[in-house]
Amino acid sequence: MDFAGKSIISIREMDKNSLLKIIETSNRVKNGEYKNFLTGKVLATLFFEPSTRTRLSFESAMRYMGGGVIGFSGTEYTSIKKGETLQDTIMTVSGYCNVIVMRHPVEGTARLASEIAIVPVINAGDGANQHPTQTFLDLFTLSELFANLSDVRVGFLGDLKYGRTVHSLAYALSLYQSPLWFIAPDLLRMPEYLTQEIKENGSRVHEVDDLERLEEHIDVLYVTRIQKERFGDMQEYERIAGCYRVTKKVVDMLGKDIKIMHPLPRVDEIAQEVDELENALYFRQAHNGIPVRQAVLGLVLGRLD
Amino acid sequence: MDFAGKSIISIREMDKNSLLKIIETSNRVKNGEYKNFLTGKVLATLFFEPSTRTRLSFESAMRYMGGGVIGFSGTEYTSIKKGETLQDTIMTVSGYCNVIVMRHPVEGTARLASEIAIVPVINAGDGANQHPTQTFLDLFTLSELFANLSDVRVGFLGDLKYGRTVHSLAYALSLYQSPLWFIAPDLLRMPEYLTQEIKENGSRVHEVDDLERLEEHIDVLYVTRIQKERFGDMQEYERIAGCYRVTKKVVDMLGKDIKIMHPLPRVDEIAQEVDELENALYFRQAHNGIPVRQAVLGLVLGRLD
Amino acid sequence: MDFAGKSIISIREMDKNSLLKIIETSNRVKNGEYKNFLTGKVLATLFFEPSTRTRLSFESAMRYMGGGVIGFSGTEYTSIKKGETLQDTIMTVSGYCNVIVMRHPVEGTARLASEIAIVPVINAGDGANQHPTQTFLDLFTLSELFANLSDVRVGFLGDLKYGRTVHSLAYALSLYQSPLWFIAPDLLRMPEYLTQEIKENGSRVHEVDDLERLEEHIDVLYVTRIQKERFGDMQEYERIAGCYRVTKKVVDMLGKDIKIMHPLPRVDEIAQEVDELENALYFRQAHNGIPVRQAVLGLVLGRLD
Repeated sequence: MDFAGKSIISIREMDKNSLLKIIETSNRVKNGEYKNFLTGKVLATLFFEPSTRTRLSFESAMRYMGGGVIGFSGTEYTSIKKGETLQDTIMTVSGYCNVIVMRHPVEGTARLASEIAIVPVINAGDGANQHPTQTFLDLFTLSELFANLSDVRVGFLGDLKYGRTVHSLAYALSLYQSPLWFIAPDLLRMPEYLTQEIKENGSRVHEVDDLERLEEHIDVLYVTRIQKERFGDMQEYERIAGCYRVTKKVVDMLGKDIKIMHPLPRVDEIAQEVDELENALYFRQAHNGIPVRQAVLGLVLGRLD
Repeated sequence: MDFAGKSIISIREMDKNSLLKIIETSNRVKNGEYKNFLTGKVLATLFFEPSTRTRLSFESAMRYMGGGVIGFSGTEYTSIKKGETLQDTIMTVSGYCNVIVMRHPVEGTARLASEIAIVPVINAGDGANQHPTQTFLDLFTLSELFANLSDVRVGFLGDLKYGRTVHSLAYALSLYQSPLWFIAPDLLRMPEYLTQEIKENGSRVHEVDDLERLEEHIDVLYVTRIQKERFGDMQEYERIAGCYRVTKKVVDMLGKDIKIMHPLPRVDEIAQEVDELENALYFRQAHNGIPVRQAVLGLVLGRLD
Repeated sequence: MDFAGKSIISIREMDKNSLLKIIETSNRVKNGEYKNFLTGKVLATLFFEPSTRTRLSFESAMRYMGGGVIGFSGTEYTSIKKGETLQDTIMTVSGYCNVIVMRHPVEGTARLASEIAIVPVINAGDGANQHPTQTFLDLFTLSELFANLSDVRVGFLGDLKYGRTVHSLAYALSLYQSPLWFIAPDLLRMPEYLTQEIKENGSRVHEVDDLERLEEHIDVLYVTRIQKERFGDMQEYERIAGCYRVTKKVVDMLGKDIKIMHPLPRVDEIAQEVDELENALYFRQAHNGIPVRQAVLGLVLGRLD
């Protein structure tokens, strides 16, 4: 796939080769092979819904490589209040920059924007739908530790029903036929259509409702938060959330080589005592956002290939 | 006029030569004749009232040419809340930058700031008063299509009573003696003092209350929004606004060469179906904000002449 | 002291040599001895509490020297709202940048952050506690006028009980054994423990409750605001605040060489009529924030030594 001039909207448009290309380019960027490859380019970060972490990560990626950034974040934005359509906003701003990174609370907005804009659009989250660069950095972090993604045994833990991050990463790993474990309470199981699709792509899938029922070793545990709002009964919530909390004891149970991942921010689904262990990968994941987003920006801007 | 070190507060300080200078410089900037001419310079964008479009446009202009930007936008600003005067804010910030771009809800504030600041101030809107760089980009867009501004027949449509943009552009065109048409409902006619002044400058002026009563061809229709708030009676508003809405049918009526301009944001005063026509100039206008503001910044910073 | 890689949290960690180093480096930076020494570096400004002046000053310092800036200001920040700990925020963002400048309403937060971050942290205010770069720029401004800080007679006026700025500067001057005058109403006297410590460091200390009772000449009057909120009785407040207001008459009384300093923003504790006098140093102080912060950034980033 040639990324130059292309928008990045959904992980579902990616084939295995595209993912490989992004992983390899990220790796070369992280190794310092390219310098200042974004000089003279301007990124617009349009965050109709605030997200400090993702916004700062894209802006930092740009600035380290000599690029400029303009943009707004949530509350500040006002032309929309004056009744302007999203289409007009995108059409206007796309004449002010070389690439747009956009977050919006409504599903499908990023694709709509990409059809209007005269520059590439990178989706940084459209509601519960897609956030492809998060999946890229998850895959890249895995690729740093495992030579062959097809062999990596990944368990997903927690809220698998609503988790955008989990859906995208599980789908991406299914392109590699990686064996997957879905560990969730009944109420929050991976949607059936997605499990089906993942199996059809060739991944072996195991579903259990408890970490203790894993019958094989896994290499990676990808943790997500179980949200209070999903439960009517607070006692029920407390009981269940407790079973899906990762502590040192859980890490011990999973074996000394287990890697713990999390898209962040976390609240208490991973105990702070885990941070100091070599098993904890989540901050490395977050920091990998910089080279991965630099690679993506370099590719869509035609400065890397 | 030598712009170096000068503030840009009002279109009324400009003579025809100054406008010509800005148009010509914008043209050379747009053609790519100068590179990175703002390197090492810092712009402060002080938006006491938010305006995403104008702010992003200035910031982008700066960054493409290698300059840096600092600033704040509306809600964020707090020293004023601590009781600091505008004078102290301006005096302080003008020591942090090479040029200030400022928007403020109160008329006259930009001029006040320019008298205090130790660097040039560019007015990006002071209440209903002035927003000179909008007029520059309107003129520049006209100059790209018409070799001689004196011959261009421009009709202004909609709210001519309160429209800051319309007042400034009509005044500027009167310096060229361009023939002008003012098309507005009785309630929203161009202020008499301004029509008088425009005539004295040598423009032929025609006033009608309906697009259908234009008896000559015009080259350009400059559309502005009729705001609900001006009307006590909502039925009256609906009836009138409907007559001033530009559709494909209206474009047909005006002839195939008619150009449609608008300062943006628009709501529904121009139908979306018009966007795809070659007659639509409004997004080109918006995008011309970049080279025009680069030219203005380059001139006042003494980097272009 | 070698500043490279070090956090700057409190003036109390500084010895006289460290202060000297910062003053000398600021002086060389202001004289233009170094160009673009922050190129390729990224600063994150994390303002959990907004402060336009300090934030703009750091951002401008960075940009003039070719560095990039990312960050947020107050209201915008939301991961914390999602329940993330400060530790996680700092750990994540410190992987996006080379240095953090941070303001937070809670005392001790900057030190906590410096223990977690993988890059240096500069404290830009933690509640009523510390704001060391303000003290650096105060000292630097004094050093531009007085060859030997040990001889400078400095009077502090106003609210000496709660003023963070005053506490830090008085402490720093005591390292030089400068003679100090504390001029405050009874209710707002310098805290006893601090007066004691300053004396132990070797400064001669004079306490009076009225400017008219100064019995010796002073060289500098450092003014701070007396806040309404400290008083239950508004008449009492008006009476007292009036006695601590600096006017031309007060300047005359203090002698033609007196220098008037203030950390800004001011409200009415210095009359505007004083601004035009050569005695007024406060805007120069503010503008010195740029070279001083450039020096500090250059030192902790290892680009100056």
